[in-house]
Amino acid sequence: MALPDLEFFRRLAAAAAEQTLPRFRQNGAVETKGSGLFDPVTEADKAAETAIRDLIAQTYPDHGILGEEHGGHGTDREFLWVIDPIDGTRAFISGLPVWGTLIGLYQDGRAVMGLMDQPFIGETFVAGPGQSHYFGRSGQAPLKVRACEKLADATLFTTSPKIFSDAHVGRYERVEKVARLARYGCDCYAYALLASGHADIVVESDLKPYDIAALIPIIENAGGVITTWDGGRPEGGGDIVACGSRRVHEEALALLRS
Amino acid sequence: MALPDLEFFRRLAAAAAEQTLPRFRQNGAVETKGSGLFDPVTEADKAAETAIRDLIAQTYPDHGILGEEHGGHGTDREFLWVIDPIDGTRAFISGLPVWGTLIGLYQDGRAVMGLMDQPFIGETFVAGPGQSHYFGRSGQAPLKVRACEKLADATLFTTSPKIFSDAHVGRYERVEKVARLARYGCDCYAYALLASGHADIVVESDLKPYDIAALIPIIENAGGVITTWDGGRPEGGGDIVACGSRRVHEEALALLRS
Repeated sequence: MALPDLEFFRRLAAAAAEQTLPRFRQNGAVETKGSGLFDPVTEADKAAETAIRDLIAQTYPDHGILGEEHGGHGTDREFLWVIDPIDGTRAFISGLPVWGTLIGLYQDGRAVMGLMDQPFIGETFVAGPGQSHYFGRSGQAPLKVRACEKLADATLFTTSPKIFSDAHVGRYERVEKVARLARYGCDCYAYALLASGHADIVVESDLKPYDIAALIPIIENAGGVITTWDGGRPEGGGDIVACGSRRVHEEALALLRS
Repeated sequence: MALPDLEFFRRLAAAAAEQTLPRFRQNGAVETKGSGLFDPVTEADKAAETAIRDLIAQTYPDHGILGEEHGGHGTDREFLWVIDPIDGTRAFISGLPVWGTLIGLYQDGRAVMGLMDQPFIGETFVAGPGQSHYFGRSGQAPLKVRACEKLADATLFTTSPKIFSDAHVGRYERVEKVARLARYGCDCYAYALLASGHADIVVESDLKPYDIAALIPIIENAGGVITTWDGGRPEGGGDIVACGSRRVHEEALALLRS
């Protein structure tokens, strides 16, 4: 069965943006999931995922869907859409436009296409086999990672140095200590910057598949490497390291392995 | 002598953007100031400050100017412009559009007008006596802080939990521990979000006057409070705490005082 075209991904992003943008910076409803932890889910999150799922179900009724908000359906099928309607909900509720809509497509468990969309800034990062594109207000460009010889020259991103468990923080800190510059607080936007050649390494921990699915093809088709901390495929989420260059990736893996 | 109008501030921002935007995400020249620390200054930084200074010197030849890049001139005059052409140079060199051009005006040592401009996203925050405005792609709105009853309900921003000295980090951590949500990595953009009612408190340390000058009138005229950690006027920089509500500010000061 043929893959969808990139234009279909952009239609999905537009449907999601119709739900997210009008609710951004409106101080909308914030729920707390679970107990103790602050894990906000806005109306925007739910409405955007519904919009994306509806359009997929109409167009590709045989495909499975796994979403952050509304769960899984047909997750054992050849094609599986893996969706986080708003990655970076904390950024969203803080008015900070570094959240993104993530839409990935797995074929037989492998991430083959993906999109990250930031509609407030007006930027879309989208990839399929052999191609990875940026669309912004000033035009379109291919996505391409930049060269980086070694970790000591690298710009590192992570959501927060405090996301790591006690067992992991020491391993993360080894990497941060070597990197030239560490930046915090960007969620999916960090991976998009890496694919665009503005950052060199992203390290995160305990991710769900929908946090990373869409970003895998964007990074891989821009020339980057993305794996788990032990070098395995990233489709299942978990502890993730993405790099623009293979050398930096090897150096980081050596530090991240326990 | 009369104050300039807000339109003049927007002209200064446009002149700066002509220098910054074409160099953003171009992987331009990065210098290292000092030794050891990574403190990048791009060509954009220098060219933007020159553009701002030239326009001020033409229009207000009797005013003093203090800028991050090109130093001070007539700093004892009644009117003193205090400029950081690119606040958040680390964000700038990482391709992350949360840097801003900061232009403040002091009268007899008191911040009376200020502007923060983020030209890539297309947002301007500008204030003068009794007024504080947002200009974005979707239009114009007054800036107004939001209500926040207590620190435990507050969204906190800081550039990084690692900016604080050993003597300060414990005091900062007391505040972060109480706050509902902590976000890192935004420099001046955090203060703009506070003035817009999307965040409740910003805590930073060891700031220079040009890091904060422009933001003082934006926050104060949006209804917020901005002082040093011991409750003094913030015009001289140093350790700064800005809050949307007076109650949160009082609670934070009690924790930040040694």
